[in-house]
Amino acid sequence: MHPADIAKSIHDSPDIAEKRRLFEDIASSSTKAHVLSELSSEHVVQVLRGIPLTELSALIKELPRDDATDILRVLPQEAVPAILRGIAHEEAAQLECLLTYPKRSAGGVMTTQYVAIHQDATVDTAFKAIQKSSIEEMIYEIYVTNDQGNLMGVVALRALLRASRKARITEIMDREPIFVTTETNQEEVADKVARYNLLSIPVVHPTGKLMGIITIDDVVDVIQEETTEDMLRMSGISTTEQDDPQFYVSGLQEAKRRLPWIFVNMLGSILAGYILWFFRYTIQEVVAIISFIPIITALGGNAGLQSSTLVIRSLAIGRIDRRDLWTLCVRESWVALLMGSICGGVILLITLAWHAHVMLGVVVGFSMTLTFLIAVVMATALPILLKYNGLDPAIAAAPLITTATDIASITIYLMTATVLLSSLS
Amino acid sequence: MHPADIAKSIHDSPDIAEKRRLFEDIASSSTKAHVLSELSSEHVVQVLRGIPLTELSALIKELPRDDATDILRVLPQEAVPAILRGIAHEEAAQLECLLTYPKRSAGGVMTTQYVAIHQDATVDTAFKAIQKSSIEEMIYEIYVTNDQGNLMGVVALRALLRASRKARITEIMDREPIFVTTETNQEEVADKVARYNLLSIPVVHPTGKLMGIITIDDVVDVIQEETTEDMLRMSGISTTEQDDPQFYVSGLQEAKRRLPWIFVNMLGSILAGYILWFFRYTIQEVVAIISFIPIITALGGNAGLQSSTLVIRSLAIGRIDRRDLWTLCVRESWVALLMGSICGGVILLITLAWHAHVMLGVVVGFSMTLTFLIAVVMATALPILLKYNGLDPAIAAAPLITTATDIASITIYLMTATVLLSSLS
Repeated sequence: MHPADIAKSIHDSPDIAEKRRLFEDIASSSTKAHVLSELSSEHVVQVLRGIPLTELSALIKELPRDDATDILRVLPQEAVPAILRGIAHEEAAQLECLLTYPKRSAGGVMTTQYVAIHQDATVDTAFKAIQKSSIEEMIYEIYVTNDQGNLMGVVALRALLRASRKARITEIMDREPIFVTTETNQEEVADKVARYNLLSIPVVHPTGKLMGIITIDDVVDVIQEETTEDMLRMSGISTTEQDDPQFYVSGLQEAKRRLPWIFVNMLGSILAGYILWFFRYTIQEVVAIISFIPIITALGGNAGLQSSTLVIRSLAIGRIDRRDLWTLCVRESWVALLMGSICGGVILLITLAWHAHVMLGVVVGFSMTLTFLIAVVMATALPILLKYNGLDPAIAAAPLITTATDIASITIYLMTATVLLSSLS
Repeated sequence: MHPADIAKSIHDSPDIAEKRRLFEDIASSSTKAHVLSELSSEHVVQVLRGIPLTELSALIKELPRDDATDILRVLPQEAVPAILRGIAHEEAAQLECLLTYPKRSAGGVMTTQYVAIHQDATVDTAFKAIQKSSIEEMIYEIYVTNDQGNLMGVVALRALLRASRKARITEIMDREPIFVTTETNQEEVADKVARYNLLSIPVVHPTGKLMGIITIDDVVDVIQEETTEDMLRMSGISTTEQDDPQFYVSGLQEAKRRLPWIFVNMLGSILAGYILWFFRYTIQEVVAIISFIPIITALGGNAGLQSSTLVIRSLAIGRIDRRDLWTLCVRESWVALLMGSICGGVILLITLAWHAHVMLGVVVGFSMTLTFLIAVVMATALPILLKYNGLDPAIAAAPLITTATDIASITIYLMTATVLLSSLS
């Protein structure tokens, strides 16, 4: 059974005792280690609880350094020094160094296991370096450095295979490799790797020294993580960093995670409710007004959510940036006017058929069009403004947009109704 | 400038004339071809319009076969035979064969450019095969086949480098490689590659014959495409297959794309409006009822959206499946009861403070709790049921969930109000 499949069965088991039994039943400690690296952090903690420190050290030793660091990050921090003491000194020092980088930076994702050779070397030396290396991670590129250890170039394994054994490495290397620094955010790393179709990307210290590499299989995990986080934020499930939709945490923990946005929503909708209450005399006078409240608020919210999703996703995959704000607002306003006037027209006809009240139809139709326009412009501008103030645009989605459009649509509708109906009745 | 960056400037240019000028200004036809493979399909059509067929043939020739197929798929279909006539017969035949697979199947994504050797070969033969091959795509694995061309195993380039030149390839190959068939959906291909951390995955005919491979850089594109599609569907922007959030299409086209869900939403909310109208006498009697309509509908919709997003994303990354339906509904009901009773309690207090009406407070608090429960159970079950009836769970999100919860919450609230208030006033 592949470690990923064992990890899946552990994920799927209903209770912790069963999860731990499954994990302890794994015969080889190398498989055990690889299963660990496939588990979500919550599960790592659960299956490792109570396992002797010496055994933990043995498991950590089996893993590629980037995966080892991920495991060490989620274990109780007071246990880490003891676990590292059970590992060869040099290896422990490497892990300790990797642990100093923030989790979601390039330094926090990279591994220091790669093959680097000096720029004076030949292709033959490079071959020998690969054959000698004990790295279990995939090698598909080797890195060329100078006396200071600065990154000078990259050679694809394929280019190495095709070159003459006597050629100098500088003759076949790519002299302008794409790289990131240890501080680069993991989302930006993923963007670069995806955009330039890279297999791995070197990570350098701001001084130019080669510090590690990030391989594409880890970038795939980063993309999944960041997308999950965006989607959970967009629907108001969480405002903190979340790698994983969690179904195994208790209902109470989950309710705690979701309630903050529900409360924001409650505050906003109390305001919307207050506005309805404020206009109660208008409503009592023309009671048919109430039959359009759900229509105006639902459609406004939906139109806003369409725009914000489009903008948030386009920002995430690098399709638009701040400079596009004006163009986008113009385009979206045009879309809103089109949709708003079509929906407004339909609603006007429905009002005539339902309540036989021409002026009410005009009020509803006009409010609908204006609501679309305001909802869409807010939903387009807000994510972009958030992003360029260093906030995550995803938090601008469902909870904020729908609350804001509820308030706007009810105000527009009832103000229009009060003005037009009273001036004409 | 990297082809991906040129493609980005073409994306960013405001008008078609400018896009075409940028594309035509590219000096080398190899760069031109690679820029093409980075452009979205809409842009490919725009920049290629009016370019002579012979030049198109030359560009197609420069590309890896999977990228060439993608371009040929989006060009006017009557031009394809003429373009293929400008390409060497054998190559044209390969492309024609790739074009027969559906776009989103493994066959439609794969390339037929890979290195395969016979199972009787030695490591030395494998090296020579790699050195001789003219493939520009990345090679990191070679494939081992038998007399019938069936896939027998896979050898990582790294294993090849470390083996003795005289060793037989069967000694170092992985005899149980993970593979997909030509018919496998691209989403499932991406799941497999991500789950097992593969660099490439072989694609076989149902009979076992090796037909092609899919490399991880293309899988990254598939993941981005499928996620974008999910997010656009979740907010009701589109029900068809969309690779790309589109800001460069006209406002009219975009309004057409978004209107269908707005209309579904309109139908549902007219029903909600009708229910309000039906209970108009209750409302006229206790006008304070209207002040809680936005609160009940907004919170119910939001709670439902939280659950549906969690379920849709968990389904997409393979964290849950149909067997989890019952467990999930129980867990989510528990979360809903917790959140509902907390919010219901808060609303009860607000009602007392605002309208000094105990029974109204009880009605609002009770309706809130029940609305949460129903919204969350619907939002959990619907995506799973859709998925196991062959539909995309993403379409169950915002438009459907919020409309359904609007109807449910208004009905619960006003029925409760009518029963409790009339029996007690």
